[in-house]
Amino acid sequence: MQYNSINLQQKLNLFSEHWSPKIIAQLNDYQLKLAKVQGEFVWHDHPETDEVFLVVKGQLTILFRDGEVKLNEGEMFVVPKGVEHKPVAENECHIMLIEPAGTVNTGDAESNLTAPNDVWI
Amino acid sequence: MQYNSINLQQKLNLFSEHWSPKIIAQLNDYQLKLAKVQGEFVWHDHPETDEVFLVVKGQLTILFRDGEVKLNEGEMFVVPKGVEHKPVAENECHIMLIEPAGTVNTGDAESNLTAPNDVWI
Repeated sequence: MQYNSINLQQKLNLFSEHWSPKIIAQLNDYQLKLAKVQGEFVWHDHPETDEVFLVVKGQLTILFRDGEVKLNEGEMFVVPKGVEHKPVAENECHIMLIEPAGTVNTGDAESNLTAPNDVWI
Repeated sequence: MQYNSINLQQKLNLFSEHWSPKIIAQLNDYQLKLAKVQGEFVWHDHPETDEVFLVVKGQLTILFRDGEVKLNEGEMFVVPKGVEHKPVAENECHIMLIEPAGTVNTGDAESNLTAPNDVWI
């Protein structure tokens, strides 16, 4: 039997909206998600979990209250749990997120950017 | 403060040995690891955990007792816990693994390919 791989670019081709992560795989109780982002997200934190950002295409800056990290394609960062952060991308950027299933994109912040956290593609 | 990103290619440049995963990041009690592989690994399974394989460069085939999956660059697969698998790469291939901290590369199989599971780069 030939099993199917999960192709990141094919998955990215399936949606266009920004700041709305799509689940592409589950590892135990963790999920891998793809998102397209552009512009400024909201300040938020995830009190219960770390969060991995991996840039698949483009450039992402993650602002912290005491600094920032700039991520180019092929670069990643782990935002520690409880640390306030604000992702920003001047141009459209494609990212992979790794976090526990059920994590909400805006964490503990109320926002009109809060997206469903259970959408698979 | 400027925080440092984790650059996958820079990390890959730091080692050359095959079948010896190096930890590059930790997400709660999970770890992201990079490995260079070539040739045939051993049949094994991980009774306690799923395992993510993501191909960063090259091509990887993962054999199962009932089939296989072929992964090209930018493709991934989640091997379910308890499922016997055997990674094979004709040419050198660079992969990222995501799995719980402490996972041993050869799982429950005794092998001279068993590598330390706590090496950070």
